[in-house]
Amino acid sequence: MKKHNFSAGPSILPQEVLNKASEAVLDYNGSGLSLIEISHRSKDFVDIMDRARALVLELLGLEGKGYQALFLQGGASTQFLMVAMNLLEKKAGYLNTGAWSEKAIKEAKVIGDIYEVASSKDANFNYIPKGFEIPSGLDYLHCTSNNTIFGTQMKSFPKTDSPLVCDMSSDIFSRQLDFSQFGLIYAGAQKNMGPAGTTLVVVREDILGKVSRTIPSILDYKKHIASDSMLNTPPVFPVYTSLLTLEWLKSVGGIAGIEQENEKKARLMYSEIDLNPLFKGFATKEDRSFMNATFTLEKESLKETFASMLKEAGISGVNGHRSVGGYRASMYNALPIESVKALVEVMSELESKA
Amino acid sequence: MKKHNFSAGPSILPQEVLNKASEAVLDYNGSGLSLIEISHRSKDFVDIMDRARALVLELLGLEGKGYQALFLQGGASTQFLMVAMNLLEKKAGYLNTGAWSEKAIKEAKVIGDIYEVASSKDANFNYIPKGFEIPSGLDYLHCTSNNTIFGTQMKSFPKTDSPLVCDMSSDIFSRQLDFSQFGLIYAGAQKNMGPAGTTLVVVREDILGKVSRTIPSILDYKKHIASDSMLNTPPVFPVYTSLLTLEWLKSVGGIAGIEQENEKKARLMYSEIDLNPLFKGFATKEDRSFMNATFTLEKESLKETFASMLKEAGISGVNGHRSVGGYRASMYNALPIESVKALVEVMSELESKA
Repeated sequence: MKKHNFSAGPSILPQEVLNKASEAVLDYNGSGLSLIEISHRSKDFVDIMDRARALVLELLGLEGKGYQALFLQGGASTQFLMVAMNLLEKKAGYLNTGAWSEKAIKEAKVIGDIYEVASSKDANFNYIPKGFEIPSGLDYLHCTSNNTIFGTQMKSFPKTDSPLVCDMSSDIFSRQLDFSQFGLIYAGAQKNMGPAGTTLVVVREDILGKVSRTIPSILDYKKHIASDSMLNTPPVFPVYTSLLTLEWLKSVGGIAGIEQENEKKARLMYSEIDLNPLFKGFATKEDRSFMNATFTLEKESLKETFASMLKEAGISGVNGHRSVGGYRASMYNALPIESVKALVEVMSELESKA
Repeated sequence: MKKHNFSAGPSILPQEVLNKASEAVLDYNGSGLSLIEISHRSKDFVDIMDRARALVLELLGLEGKGYQALFLQGGASTQFLMVAMNLLEKKAGYLNTGAWSEKAIKEAKVIGDIYEVASSKDANFNYIPKGFEIPSGLDYLHCTSNNTIFGTQMKSFPKTDSPLVCDMSSDIFSRQLDFSQFGLIYAGAQKNMGPAGTTLVVVREDILGKVSRTIPSILDYKKHIASDSMLNTPPVFPVYTSLLTLEWLKSVGGIAGIEQENEKKARLMYSEIDLNPLFKGFATKEDRSFMNATFTLEKESLKETFASMLKEAGISGVNGHRSVGGYRASMYNALPIESVKALVEVMSELESKA
């Protein structure tokens, strides 16, 4: 039986994507060769890379607006470094909304001077800071759009004259935004885009080439752009599976289509959290993430009963992160609403038992 | 029909590895979840990572000798940078045996001072320099064990008091060596170890922690070791498929077993190149690679006939690299001797037609 997969990441992918990816590992497109044993310079793979890069821009509405899409390696953690290497000359601003922001700040500090424009650390990151001042003249302003661990999500983005850089690892392609407000977006694939092993970078070219340091080749966005995202051997399988996931997204109506589904799932989930006296939401209501709902079970004594009911219902991956505790239901693009219904049913059934 | 796959990399993998990898994409071990949609912190994946790291040390004969195996991202190209970041304080030595050595040198120069101990650039890298002096007091000496583009391979390694660092991307696990002569070995997976998307690093821990610079976290070997090769989300599918390939290698007798096969394949291939007047080997005989045979066709007029005969025989991936021209037959671990026989047969048939 297929489980209800609420894993925070790597996370659920559409079944048709898994089927096609599995098939390609045996034989790619009837070529007599597996996808993972062909040259990345072959026509077949160059075509995959080109289509994936183009489809990213199409889905984000960034075609013809001076942006480039890259499929790199090393996760968002490598982007923490690359962003600073490529953009940080004098001083960069960082909005601190949780563990991932903190890591981004820590890594950038190795490269240069950082100013924390605001932080929600005072309340264990259960809200998104608002109304803060942004100094002028920053090289860029960095933010994290969705905080998987804490279950918060930025609903709007700061206005600034500096390029806005955003770690969208856990909510990219999940909601409509004016993506042209960002100078650079990055995202590990393993939530809404594909399997672990590739990182999407979308960058407006005109913000590059302005720092005075010598950037090591492998960390240089301009070099990756110049070689069409093939500066070295790309992660073939993760890129292909990402393409399949993006094609699936397009087939279900693109970001506009999936946003409606995500809203329905989040509404269902948060209604249960708010109405069921056994549970309590962690994040401030107005900042709640549509991707990751964090909540606690108020009666410790019911913990084991809840766990066995979840297991019984085939529900997997709802354990909370250690820094927040409780539970976390991750509802990425590929999670069907039926899975949320199954979870909500168990929560409601627990109430009737309590 | 399955092709004879001589691709230089990403390259052929054992069929049983492809079968198991394909199955895991649909359902991992009957878990009801795909391998690529489970948490990397799950027991299932932690177990995969632990087994892969242990098996690397076992196959290399490095258990209990102070080494750690890491599965990172970013390819050998990222190691060009990481090696220098982690080990280069005053001056490092580099042996220049081809395009990959040159890239390693270029990247290290961004970090510090480099001394080229020897080079075979004078003859378009068709040989391995020997008998050169190695200055004392180098932070490390870097070499490339096998040069895919030129078809040369180091048969022995320099003796030095400095840690020996080796890029073994294209011949790791292919032949018996005293691997404890190396302080650090790195290799992109996509030749003998698995699909593109993960890079193996094997490092003797005592050579680390000696530079004065602050190393960015994501480039710090010590941080990767401290987090059991899970500093951030690892490339799940490439690591699992690498484990499968290493398990296959063990099942066919480990490195000792595969070395015999590789010798047979290389003997067969080079015999044909030497005996068939239509072909000419590129690399100096004593330095010939057992992984990549490079050769040219002496009669330009036969090029198209040869191409169509290769296609007819289901032989794929023998085109040479642009910097050498001609042909290149890559005979990695998973290539069956039958494929070499098929190629040799076509070469021999071409002679009879000429």
